[in-house]
Amino acid sequence: MTNIALTEFLAQFITEERLQRFDDVLQNRTRRLTVVLENIHHAHNASACLRTCDCLGIQDVHVVESMNSFEPNRDISLGSSQWLTIRRFQNEASAEHDASPTIRCLQELKDNGYRILTTSPRQHSRSLYDLQADEPTAVVFGAEQLGVSDEAVEFADGLIHIPMYGFTESFNISVSVALVMQHLLADLRRQSDWQLAEAEVQELRDRWIRASLGEKLAPLIRRFEADLAADD
Amino acid sequence: MTNIALTEFLAQFITEERLQRFDDVLQNRTRRLTVVLENIHHAHNASACLRTCDCLGIQDVHVVESMNSFEPNRDISLGSSQWLTIRRFQNEASAEHDASPTIRCLQELKDNGYRILTTSPRQHSRSLYDLQADEPTAVVFGAEQLGVSDEAVEFADGLIHIPMYGFTESFNISVSVALVMQHLLADLRRQSDWQLAEAEVQELRDRWIRASLGEKLAPLIRRFEADLAADD
Repeated sequence: MTNIALTEFLAQFITEERLQRFDDVLQNRTRRLTVVLENIHHAHNASACLRTCDCLGIQDVHVVESMNSFEPNRDISLGSSQWLTIRRFQNEASAEHDASPTIRCLQELKDNGYRILTTSPRQHSRSLYDLQADEPTAVVFGAEQLGVSDEAVEFADGLIHIPMYGFTESFNISVSVALVMQHLLADLRRQSDWQLAEAEVQELRDRWIRASLGEKLAPLIRRFEADLAADD
Repeated sequence: MTNIALTEFLAQFITEERLQRFDDVLQNRTRRLTVVLENIHHAHNASACLRTCDCLGIQDVHVVESMNSFEPNRDISLGSSQWLTIRRFQNEASAEHDASPTIRCLQELKDNGYRILTTSPRQHSRSLYDLQADEPTAVVFGAEQLGVSDEAVEFADGLIHIPMYGFTESFNISVSVALVMQHLLADLRRQSDWQLAEAEVQELRDRWIRASLGEKLAPLIRRFEADLAADD
């Protein structure tokens, strides 16, 4: 739950233009499609994936770090990570998590109603271009050299591939994310019900306002609370 | 003109699998769409663009180097440049070329019947998604920070942009190439007449066979010529 009175108080300290930008972006955001990045090795690739998701209007990115630590490069992500909802799944020592980071991530998505597709050139993999966006879908992209893990392939509801017409065996990872998502989004945006729910809009708008205020945030919250106390 | 007898002689020294791969790739290659890269600065971006074109089936890439020298990074291009037809346009001191590399490139494309579109976020720029591939089309992509040059914009038949739904102002350049080409290729491949002409197929097949033979090529050509002379 966000405190609407506090959000509106804070919003006064953001330019009109900026608030309008938030509204425009929020109108085009979707959670019906999401990206899972499994052990992306190079920082510039990780960053380019985040930037691509932001530009396309994908809100949620899931990052599995069982072998690599995910370190976006700010020069390439251009700050896009602060506008996205990034869920990270790492190795944990505690006994309550005996499943791997990949399985915990995919199980959570499945529990939330997502169909899980992994990108893989194996047999029985369907062409991206035969695919529709008629249900909430998470697409798993694997590490640069290794591709998606066997456990992700086994867990998935299906495998997909981008048809390859040349000599090179694979696209760069951020290019793969872009091609898969562009195709699915074209289908999705023709439907209804792909936009964020009102509560999600409010929550993100609040988060973005806070992020934009930077160091001004804490003193403003104190001022809001002091004003409230004075009114009592 | 390729010498068909020589090509077939050389083809004997290539594996069947490899020759089959050449045929598969040639069947999916097109020259109806082409990419112009204007002063791409970073080697990894240039390389990722080449790799993307090869994977998508785009044969021709035009490289304008008036400000930057185009240096693909082999780790990223994965050798894709040897399978593409790359035309380079550089600054030249001679008096016969008073037009800039950009204009020489675009004029040549226009003379060859291409519609010239530049990617640009300016006013009057059309959404990529309103675009069809109903005529031969060259799309100009500009440098990472600067975008396409003013002279390219002025010369072009039209401006296009990829709709942006997020906070980040632009896609990575290889992602832009991929998104634009994926959209146009989906339309193109529904049409007829997008494949290479038979003479183009023969010429590329010959070039690829020669490239695959590497150091074995020169001695094989000498052997072929000696056999011919003996037959006379």
